Amino acid sequence: NFIKCYSNEAPASSATNNMSIALKQQLYMIDSNSPGSVFFLPHGTRLFNKLVQFMKIQQKKHGFDEVITPLIYKKKLWEISGHWDNYKEDMYRVEGNEVSHGDAKDEETFGLKPMNCPGHCLIYKRFDRSINELPIRYSDWSSLHRNEASGALTGLTRVRRFHQDDGHIFCTQEQISAEIMKTLHLIKLVYGVFGLSDYTLMLSTRPDNYVGTLEEWNSAETQLKSVLDQVAPSSWSIREGDGAFYGPKIDILSRDNYSREHQIGTIQLDFQLPHRFELKYRPHEGDFKPPIMIHRAVFGSIERFMALLIDHYQGKWPFWMNPRQAVIIPINSSHVGKANEVRDLLSGRSNDYETLDDLVNHQFDIDIDSRAETVGYRTRDALNKSYSYIILVGDKELENNVISLRSRDSRKVTTKTVEEVRELFQELVRSYQ
Amino acid sequence: NFIKCYSNEAPASSATNNMSIALKQQLYMIDSNSPGSVFFLPHGTRLFNKLVQFMKIQQKKHGFDEVITPLIYKKKLWEISGHWDNYKEDMYRVEGNEVSHGDAKDEETFGLKPMNCPGHCLIYKRFDRSINELPIRYSDWSSLHRNEASGALTGLTRVRRFHQDDGHIFCTQEQISAEIMKTLHLIKLVYGVFGLSDYTLMLSTRPDNYVGTLEEWNSAETQLKSVLDQVAPSSWSIREGDGAFYGPKIDILSRDNYSREHQIGTIQLDFQLPHRFELKYRPHEGDFKPPIMIHRAVFGSIERFMALLIDHYQGKWPFWMNPRQAVIIPINSSHVGKANEVRDLLSGRSNDYETLDDLVNHQFDIDIDSRAETVGYRTRDALNKSYSYIILVGDKELENNVISLRSRDSRKVTTKTVEEVRELFQELVRSYQ
Ligand SMILES: [Zn+2]
Ligand SMILES: [Zn+2]
Repeated sequence: NFIKCYSNEAPASSATNNMSIALKQQLYMIDSNSPGSVFFLPHGTRLFNKLVQFMKIQQKKHGFDEVITPLIYKKKLWEISGHWDNYKEDMYRVEGNEVSHGDAKDEETFGLKPMNCPGHCLIYKRFDRSINELPIRYSDWSSLHRNEASGALTGLTRVRRFHQDDGHIFCTQEQISAEIMKTLHLIKLVYGVFGLSDYTLMLSTRPDNYVGTLEEWNSAETQLKSVLDQVAPSSWSIREGDGAFYGPKIDILSRDNYSREHQIGTIQLDFQLPHRFELKYRPHEGDFKPPIMIHRAVFGSIERFMALLIDHYQGKWPFWMNPRQAVIIPINSSHVGKANEVRDLLSGRSNDYETLDDLVNHQFDIDIDSRAETVGYRTRDALNKSYSYIILVGDKELENNVISLRSRDSRKVTTKTVEEVRELFQELVRSYQ
Repeated sequence: NFIKCYSNEAPASSATNNMSIALKQQLYMIDSNSPGSVFFLPHGTRLFNKLVQFMKIQQKKHGFDEVITPLIYKKKLWEISGHWDNYKEDMYRVEGNEVSHGDAKDEETFGLKPMNCPGHCLIYKRFDRSINELPIRYSDWSSLHRNEASGALTGLTRVRRFHQDDGHIFCTQEQISAEIMKTLHLIKLVYGVFGLSDYTLMLSTRPDNYVGTLEEWNSAETQLKSVLDQVAPSSWSIREGDGAFYGPKIDILSRDNYSREHQIGTIQLDFQLPHRFELKYRPHEGDFKPPIMIHRAVFGSIERFMALLIDHYQGKWPFWMNPRQAVIIPINSSHVGKANEVRDLLSGRSNDYETLDDLVNHQFDIDIDSRAETVGYRTRDALNKSYSYIILVGDKELENNVISLRSRDSRKVTTKTVEEVRELFQELVRSYQ
């Protein structure tokens, strides 16, 4: 359990159902050329990007600065971080193909990163840090790779390549409490948006083989308990002595539709990595001190979180995150031009290429189905793919400059202007429906 | 020159100046633990993300579907694509660390991808494709790795890890002309937005050692010439026989402030890869046919394009892409609360966590400088970091519920409401100023 920081595992028992929804909606595919790495198809990529966009906004509000960090680092870095000694068997080794070149290429061994922490430590270390700058909070959306056993690989839940809403906080010992409070607040907010309110918080405390001082541990654990009592007085429990050797942690366990618990988010204190990297800050007075490092993720693995959401919504995505927000069905081929026009207006694309509103307009994901099939067939197909809204464009609509709209959940058809529908859509997103 | 698809090289002569702007603005850093891989710092990441966001919208308008594809593929895939025979020395090899586990881990050799094309071929190949679906256009923002000679690595221009606004079009022979037209339109639009209108288009035609049929080549070259004549009658030239063996190409060469030419975008036809992957589509009648594949990028390498923009703007970013759009300076510590409130409103963050407008609001990058320094010192520092706007919040502003605003380029201070400033900012983004 060394510096694993977060787990990317989940039970695979609902994997079949999950796969069948993903297949029907063409969300992703897997391929034997890259076992454990998911190919996100166009609509799966939209879903992925919506989760990322949503979380980036929340992170920004919670004081995180996004960074983009390398994927491969020389072996010596992984020796400093301790991964090469303790985590090597789960890591991929990267090497140049040795060929004699005019100019020297790197023939050293690299490690493909299984987590972002060492990269963030390098950024922290690059600049002189004063106590006034703390807490420093970095977020990162890098691909991470772990060489999981091939027998266990399935769909989105057991993978070798995954992405996290990863974040590291560098703070003083006195700031732990406020940072944990903010993180638990973010967790509550995020899980609430997805209707995942059935979760418990599990505090794991100091094990026998700990690093750091007893004083550090006691101070941190006291702060964690006090915050948990404030934020979730009746919904946290404790696993005495079950913390990692480098710090106590809070795991967030969510119960799914099948009453099974999944670990999603984690908050993991770390008294060790700042020492290994010799990180420090200048306090108000006295000698340089090492910061405390907090590893935290709210989604955890996006792939795993997406699998959980597929189960949770059974593929019936709420409008705001649906990769298929609406489909426009032109009644016959003479209405295709109008359908394109409506799509551009409704989705927020400027169709005038000179005055470009696209960057400030909210963009919706709207497709057109202009296949030479009946309206009934295309409507059924749209329902099957779980479009939130189906929009018809025919002679009547053309004449009155309106569109006819029905939702996934009701056969009732209403007639509205494009502007009215755009406002409806914005309101749905605004309220996370 | 095999399937290199696009180059990630650029002359390094302005590297020193580039680096000094990047350093002053804290855009990125490099580190010996990962030579050739850039660490984007928070403000560099903002810039990177703005370029990506801008291009994603343009790609969507031009019919591209974004996909997310694996970074490592088994050696056998690179043998199919031809990279293992022809490009191996520039590629990184990836292997699991051999350890005996309970469950078998993959001990096969993988290649870390230097380009996205093979992954996109796998997606194309996975589904039955009919002519009605073509053209299919995939875009991808994956990290790419090439083991460039270590002596040549500098800043953003010679790197080992980079990102492209990569896209592949699968189309019929008859669709080449329309696709090239659309791509050149996109190039003109994009370069226009950045004021890079001084570029030439270079057509490279069939070499002696070509693959494919003479008829394919002739048809493609005729279409390319005809499109170039329509789109850029006086600004294209030809390099006879200089195409890659697998297809003709159009390189876009931009002239920088120093009158040097850089290759940025590329449009590369490929008659070979669809055959190697046995890709096909069902035509209206008759046997399955292989599609034509077009590799294209408009920015090319984002890292290199960013370096070019640093030179081009000399760090004075236009507002819409500035990673520092505004800084709020509270005159003294009693104004910090108001400064935070203004920052939230102006940047488009909802500060009410229950009714969340964040997803539909355009977000601006606004910092606060509440250091205990004089207003003059903080203003000079803001100008030095090239903030587009400097906003003062003091007693007068608090009293009248307004903010005082000056731009980077003029000392003139005006007084406006937050709503007025937000509208001004939106208008600037809307018009790419
Ligand atoms: Zn971590
Ligand atoms: Zn390509």
